[in-house]
Amino acid sequence: MIDARLVERLVDIVGPKWVLRDSNELHVYSFDATPIVQAFPDVVVMPGSTAEVAEVLKLANDHGIPVIPRGSGTNLAGGTIPVQGGIVLNMTRMNQIYEVDEKNLTATVGPGVVTGEFHKTVEAKGLFYPPDPGSMRISTIGGNVAQCAGGMRGLKYGVTKDYVIGLEYVLPNGQILRCGGKNYKDVAGYDLTRLLVGSEGTLAVITELTLKLLPLPETKRTLSVFCTSLVDAARIVERTISARIIPATMEFLDQATMRVVDDFSHLGLPRDVAAMLLIEQDGPEEQVVRDVERIVQIARSEGAVDVQMAKTPEESAKLMTARRAALAALSRLRPTTILEDATVPRSRLAEMVEAIIRISEKYQVQICTFGHAGDGNLHPTCMTDERDEAEIARVEQAFEEIFATALSLGGTITGEHGVGMTKMKYLSQRVGEGGIELMQAIKAAFDPNGILNPGKVVAKAFRPRMVVRQP
Amino acid sequence: MIDARLVERLVDIVGPKWVLRDSNELHVYSFDATPIVQAFPDVVVMPGSTAEVAEVLKLANDHGIPVIPRGSGTNLAGGTIPVQGGIVLNMTRMNQIYEVDEKNLTATVGPGVVTGEFHKTVEAKGLFYPPDPGSMRISTIGGNVAQCAGGMRGLKYGVTKDYVIGLEYVLPNGQILRCGGKNYKDVAGYDLTRLLVGSEGTLAVITELTLKLLPLPETKRTLSVFCTSLVDAARIVERTISARIIPATMEFLDQATMRVVDDFSHLGLPRDVAAMLLIEQDGPEEQVVRDVERIVQIARSEGAVDVQMAKTPEESAKLMTARRAALAALSRLRPTTILEDATVPRSRLAEMVEAIIRISEKYQVQICTFGHAGDGNLHPTCMTDERDEAEIARVEQAFEEIFATALSLGGTITGEHGVGMTKMKYLSQRVGEGGIELMQAIKAAFDPNGILNPGKVVAKAFRPRMVVRQP
Repeated sequence: MIDARLVERLVDIVGPKWVLRDSNELHVYSFDATPIVQAFPDVVVMPGSTAEVAEVLKLANDHGIPVIPRGSGTNLAGGTIPVQGGIVLNMTRMNQIYEVDEKNLTATVGPGVVTGEFHKTVEAKGLFYPPDPGSMRISTIGGNVAQCAGGMRGLKYGVTKDYVIGLEYVLPNGQILRCGGKNYKDVAGYDLTRLLVGSEGTLAVITELTLKLLPLPETKRTLSVFCTSLVDAARIVERTISARIIPATMEFLDQATMRVVDDFSHLGLPRDVAAMLLIEQDGPEEQVVRDVERIVQIARSEGAVDVQMAKTPEESAKLMTARRAALAALSRLRPTTILEDATVPRSRLAEMVEAIIRISEKYQVQICTFGHAGDGNLHPTCMTDERDEAEIARVEQAFEEIFATALSLGGTITGEHGVGMTKMKYLSQRVGEGGIELMQAIKAAFDPNGILNPGKVVAKAFRPRMVVRQP
Repeated sequence: MIDARLVERLVDIVGPKWVLRDSNELHVYSFDATPIVQAFPDVVVMPGSTAEVAEVLKLANDHGIPVIPRGSGTNLAGGTIPVQGGIVLNMTRMNQIYEVDEKNLTATVGPGVVTGEFHKTVEAKGLFYPPDPGSMRISTIGGNVAQCAGGMRGLKYGVTKDYVIGLEYVLPNGQILRCGGKNYKDVAGYDLTRLLVGSEGTLAVITELTLKLLPLPETKRTLSVFCTSLVDAARIVERTISARIIPATMEFLDQATMRVVDDFSHLGLPRDVAAMLLIEQDGPEEQVVRDVERIVQIARSEGAVDVQMAKTPEESAKLMTARRAALAALSRLRPTTILEDATVPRSRLAEMVEAIIRISEKYQVQICTFGHAGDGNLHPTCMTDERDEAEIARVEQAFEEIFATALSLGGTITGEHGVGMTKMKYLSQRVGEGGIELMQAIKAAFDPNGILNPGKVVAKAFRPRMVVRQP
């Protein structure tokens, strides 16, 4: 527990209004979007400036108090759970868009800016920020950068790390530093910008971000493709890429997900097909039209039973929204929904999806699979009940086998959700003990006292203060 | 000096043919493409496999012997000079292209593959590897990755780090590790792949690389634009980007460079204009045609005295080759040519070029400027004579002022050449003492004994063993 005098010091730094202590408030910060895991912070602090962040960190560092930076808490790997208590640093007050620089095609923002709001702001100027994680309507840019969030446009446009070119950050000792800037080319020393992206709040607290922008694509078209077999769907993805066409989006939904999504969104999707691909291409009009025609040909020649082109932007938007609603739709089925993030090289997609089905049958658990087929990033999603310990045990065995399979196919244990606390046990299988030791040494270089988001990513040991959430 | 017994151990590891000791051979490895700096290695070792690299490193690490990894030695910041002697590790034997994976759009190669050869190989399959550093005809992919090489296509396509998705590397203790792979999305722990890119051989020895490829653009067009003022040229670059057009290439040559290039390449360039822009757009036919028309309009409306479109691919190639020959052409003027690498945000281009002219007059030194206008990466190039100490002193003062100006404009001390040894004195002005301390701690995490490329990038102290090269 943090003693009262320290809490008073925190109040002095950020003001009484921005230090939350009451148990209802602490409860709100005891979980994120990850099921089952939960732990209570001692206090929640909402800094309003970089200087305040620096003062809070210095105080915490001097007293060895854990600090867990947090945006909207949409994390799916327990990354923002205060497993050792301490201070949850809620960054959402630092939500200014400082600049959209139309000459250099950059934007400079605070970490608390909501991703979807940022999209609207830059798109109103004819500019484009591609990363579009599923939670973008509520997630913050700071959280996206801490996690290196992905999304549906990764195939063509890459992920968050490909758009972060400058950062202001604060070390645990309170030192305020900058790396990168507005220069597209900059090789002055090691690339600390890229190292901080995806470091999940374990190395430093990011207080300002400079992001690279693109011109907004002129137009886009959306196709839905229905297949009677997963292999057909996977082959359509492969053949499209082999035809040297890189769509902005190639989303995959299996039959179970399609049905649930259709019940939820009433799109009138066919109930009897094995898989659906949602394909979107953007760019200059002529190219989009030509690419879409080519994709339709490929889909038909690879046995798609039906191919539909959205007739209006509204219809496209409706389809994409339905896909984005997959998690919400699935989560209505059972009390607990576990959304996972196994990723394989694109060419191993069908094998992976078939393995997931086999594994779910083997352990008698209900797993639906959807995800980003274009970049091999799948989201096997398990509908279960955290109160049923026997079933939860089977679910964990199933996911263990799913990750082992992904690794055996040259894949990874997480494509875009991060390691947080729930993936720690798999990390050494992916990066090896040697890789973990290097990462631990890097962590020690930034955070010698280990106060930043302890018990996460490459933590050596951690004392969880965990309770199963009461439904 | 390395004693004879250790040399014998090296011979046992790689075979007698691959250990070079004779003084003529050592002389070849005593310099790279950087003028003035030179130092002799004790021995040159050419490993043929990752296992051999690991054995050599372990031996060197156990005996505290410096190891300097090197490709073709085209470095321009003294990055491959063995300033403390030791072993130059020539990686050029590991030059296999192991795989071009057309399904996942990746290639897996050895570090010794020559960049230009790699371009040919993937382009023959309709694929595209955008990084195109000036030295690409002889530089190696391993060297490009160690330096995070840039090139002419950075504006639209980014630089080397944007295409490296997996690495095999060896730590000084001989441990062989892998990071990344073929997954476009992978957030399993800190991004060691990106950290190793641009680490200039100071953290680990890269032994295998997995690179991301794109479809080869359908077509391209090349424009030359001639302006009577630098400001006009800069405004044409700005207005093009503001019009949401991102050309593949926007190269800039000042009058002095143009004249020298023309004398060298006989292109019949106008002698009286202040600046030339070489603009190339690639992509689908219709878009390229439309973009080029738009750029021509912008150029004319911004006072370009002449705009010419290359009529044939050969003519385009000739123009680009002439631009690539700028350094070779300039180097004929005086005994010593110092090519620098100051970079500013695109919008500060004109200010920077004017400052360079002012500074060269102030110190009475001859500096021509050319470079990558699209991404603000300029190459002020000084023609001097290393035998004239007084002039070299003025040259150093001039460059110090040029870098200070770049920093004051929000720029950086190196856009694509790296820190090596010649930029170390400027690094703290760019990243701050705090940034340097972090980088030193990261270096210590990988290389606790400091054997890898000592005296470079963030070296705390180094005993240079330097002689001025005899012309």
